Amino acid sequence: MRDPNCIFCRIAAGEIPSATVYEDMDFRAILDLGPASCGHTLILPKDHFRDLTELPDETAAKVLPLARRIGTTLKDALGAAGFNVVQNNGEAAGQTVPHFHVHLIPRYEGDENIVSWTPGELSEADRDMILEKVAKAL
Amino acid sequence: MRDPNCIFCRIAAGEIPSATVYEDMDFRAILDLGPASCGHTLILPKDHFRDLTELPDETAAKVLPLARRIGTTLKDALGAAGFNVVQNNGEAAGQTVPHFHVHLIPRYEGDENIVSWTPGELSEADRDMILEKVAKAL
Repeated sequence: MRDPNCIFCRIAAGEIPSATVYEDMDFRAILDLGPASCGHTLILPKDHFRDLTELPDETAAKVLPLARRIGTTLKDALGAAGFNVVQNNGEAAGQTVPHFHVHLIPRYEGDENIVSWTPGELSEADRDMILEKVAKAL
Repeated sequence: MRDPNCIFCRIAAGEIPSATVYEDMDFRAILDLGPASCGHTLILPKDHFRDLTELPDETAAKVLPLARRIGTTLKDALGAAGFNVVQNNGEAAGQTVPHFHVHLIPRYEGDENIVSWTPGELSEADRDMILEKVAKAL
């Protein structure tokens, strides 16, 4: 189902032009207009899902095989040294458009560490609390 | 196939103890010992694949449905506002252990923007060059 007010639905449907690197029945992959690196690509499902929590299994199962195919091609075709796969859920996680999408970010030797974090420590108290709350619910 | 010299193979097999939040035939999900946030979890396949480029379709298809299930549970159980899914391929992309793994990073209201990048611009020349090289290869 499409959401007529969603810009990514309109791009995925081809109503709004985009730099499309790949398209099939279910997905369109486009170049990001604000790229983190040369070749930064977004994979968009054509149906509207706000984020990963809404994505049905059938669609979710297709995403990573497609990300591998496009990511490997980006890396090889552009001479990158690697690539990041990033998928953000919720504004607090940096999601700016509420239509599920996957970022493929080619990475080059010597570029700055674009996607990173400062490692913390896992205390025993936190570990036990998380295991108690999460492992039981899974 | 396992690699006897790979620490993530040994953790996934249960040879090295870990804070396991989930396990099935194909995967083990553990708490990261250097967490970016409370609940930072890694999904590891039990078989050894260096990165996404080596992951067979059958395994790749199972990853995102599992990431949705565990990510949603982490978010709900820990009261997070969202979560990031991050998967790094190659040292240049920040991959530190050469065994495919997916980071699930719960994000909380008001925390710092851990996973981010500074958007660049997509020039027409870059766009045309990338489309020429990548779209043809896909």
